[in-house]
Amino acid sequence: MQPTDPPAAPLTPTIVFENLQAHQRTFALKAAIELDIFRAVGQGPGDVASIAYHAKASERGIRILCDFLVINGLLQKEDGRYRHTPSSAAFLDPSSPSCLASIVGFLSLPALREPYEHLAEIVRTGRTVLPGEGTVEPENPVWVEFAQSMAPMMGPLAGPLGAIVLEVRNGPMRVLDIAAGHGLFGIEIAKQNKQAHVTGLDWAPVLRVALENAKKAGVQDRYDMLPGSAFEVDFGGPYDTVLLTNFLHHFDVETCVGLLKKVHSSIKSGGCAATLEFVPNDDRVSPPMPAAFSMTMLASTASGDAYTFAELSEMHSRAGFKDVTKHPVPMSPHTIVMARV
Amino acid sequence: MQPTDPPAAPLTPTIVFENLQAHQRTFALKAAIELDIFRAVGQGPGDVASIAYHAKASERGIRILCDFLVINGLLQKEDGRYRHTPSSAAFLDPSSPSCLASIVGFLSLPALREPYEHLAEIVRTGRTVLPGEGTVEPENPVWVEFAQSMAPMMGPLAGPLGAIVLEVRNGPMRVLDIAAGHGLFGIEIAKQNKQAHVTGLDWAPVLRVALENAKKAGVQDRYDMLPGSAFEVDFGGPYDTVLLTNFLHHFDVETCVGLLKKVHSSIKSGGCAATLEFVPNDDRVSPPMPAAFSMTMLASTASGDAYTFAELSEMHSRAGFKDVTKHPVPMSPHTIVMARV
Repeated sequence: MQPTDPPAAPLTPTIVFENLQAHQRTFALKAAIELDIFRAVGQGPGDVASIAYHAKASERGIRILCDFLVINGLLQKEDGRYRHTPSSAAFLDPSSPSCLASIVGFLSLPALREPYEHLAEIVRTGRTVLPGEGTVEPENPVWVEFAQSMAPMMGPLAGPLGAIVLEVRNGPMRVLDIAAGHGLFGIEIAKQNKQAHVTGLDWAPVLRVALENAKKAGVQDRYDMLPGSAFEVDFGGPYDTVLLTNFLHHFDVETCVGLLKKVHSSIKSGGCAATLEFVPNDDRVSPPMPAAFSMTMLASTASGDAYTFAELSEMHSRAGFKDVTKHPVPMSPHTIVMARV
Repeated sequence: MQPTDPPAAPLTPTIVFENLQAHQRTFALKAAIELDIFRAVGQGPGDVASIAYHAKASERGIRILCDFLVINGLLQKEDGRYRHTPSSAAFLDPSSPSCLASIVGFLSLPALREPYEHLAEIVRTGRTVLPGEGTVEPENPVWVEFAQSMAPMMGPLAGPLGAIVLEVRNGPMRVLDIAAGHGLFGIEIAKQNKQAHVTGLDWAPVLRVALENAKKAGVQDRYDMLPGSAFEVDFGGPYDTVLLTNFLHHFDVETCVGLLKKVHSSIKSGGCAATLEFVPNDDRVSPPMPAAFSMTMLASTASGDAYTFAELSEMHSRAGFKDVTKHPVPMSPHTIVMARV
């Protein structure tokens, strides 16, 4: 097949240069968060000198960094002063309740960042350069950091997930939250349904973070902990609902099917499994965020992927589930997949 | 000042996530170049299996990498097959005469890449974490790599620069090319004007690359070499024209003015200096590419910058030049600044 469509704009190498220099954007945003730039901008007046004073940094450095953030859509500049964009005000200023700047802590971990230095080798072999199963090796400490720093990104998804789950079943119910992490998904169900009893499953050090969050939400009396590997521990149960959030993407299809069979056998008749995933379209290149997530799985796992709904549906069917449906979460790159027993 | 404009789209943290993960784009393009993916796509048929065979790589890795390149605008995908975009065909396929994939060699050098790991510290201190003057330390070997690998990116600028210089003066002329690098700018003038005699000034190992290029162009008989530092060697002369390409941005204003005075004194009455630079608008945040270049200078030098035309004009005036004019190079992020003696 030959390229037939004419270029939309004059042909320049800009896109090549932009991609090769894209790493600057990662490090600029990380530095800006570390230097507390977004709080300084929110407090005003937004001139270089006052931001530099707040950040205990040089004026040359602040001016170039803030201009760079403006170029990349993370701040605005007007009459030489920096101010928030709507999204930097909401998501990067620590004084905003929806600030998620802490996610830089997880995304900057060496285990997540360093494999890219060897990406050609990873593409050759088809698996991460990290040992074993990569980030999903037993007791990998990255998941404590995930539980701590990714909560602000995942929290807004808990409401929609809880609503879908409780639409299916309400009243007294038992919920298993597999790979609970921060625990926010199970905790949300306990908050919305006072008769729900939640069991969080994850590595013991991760569950300590979940328990803290359960205490903050005042649901710790209805929150049990099941420490260990989802592939090894006895789930107990039976449960009305099992949550599988941000988990299947770490494994290959056969491993997912095996786990889903185990999940299926732990659910009461009429109950359901609720999976939260990055779900690309069948073309695997749209929407951008869920589709791009495959790259993260290539770099950090042995055989994970961002699965399409057709693939997830097939996995669930092979494990014995019926009525598999998808529910995109508004304003988010995530999709909830519901499946009945 | 408060944010007043409503968000153009529903407020999502996408831009935050995109910026934090932007480093993936750098490494994906680098890996694709290393694995010769763009040649394979150009040859067709563009399915995963045949690209993987060409690249001696896994199908899982190739599929995820190529999808990721599509998401980032560097390939197209149709009916499951990958094909070139107009820009990947022109600038990334090694069978294209305008291919500039080699620039990854320079842009990936540890001296250019590693300072970003310490960007918060760089912003605090206002200078690179590299020792001394950073990439412009005497005899820094990065400039040999620059001369070798950046030539395809700089080559297309040589024609426009040569045309502007020769419009001012033709016939017998002497040209000094300061920080000659690959030498392509001076060589172009020698090609366009058979009576031009060019002297390339750079570190000796860099000039070997320029001499090779002069031989390829058949102008080596009119190409002299002046090895050393532009700040230390005697320029000789007098010259009709002095070229200062991609050089001033490495230094602070006073250093630039000092160098321009030395340049001025080496030019005959009626001659001119021609500077090639990334020149942002006065707002310093547009156009994106020249404005973003300040970040590269922050990370890799002690005091360099992407200077506005007002600043460059002032520097030239202080050094004794007159009639300072700017000439944006079409289809490029560069601007030529001409100044008369």
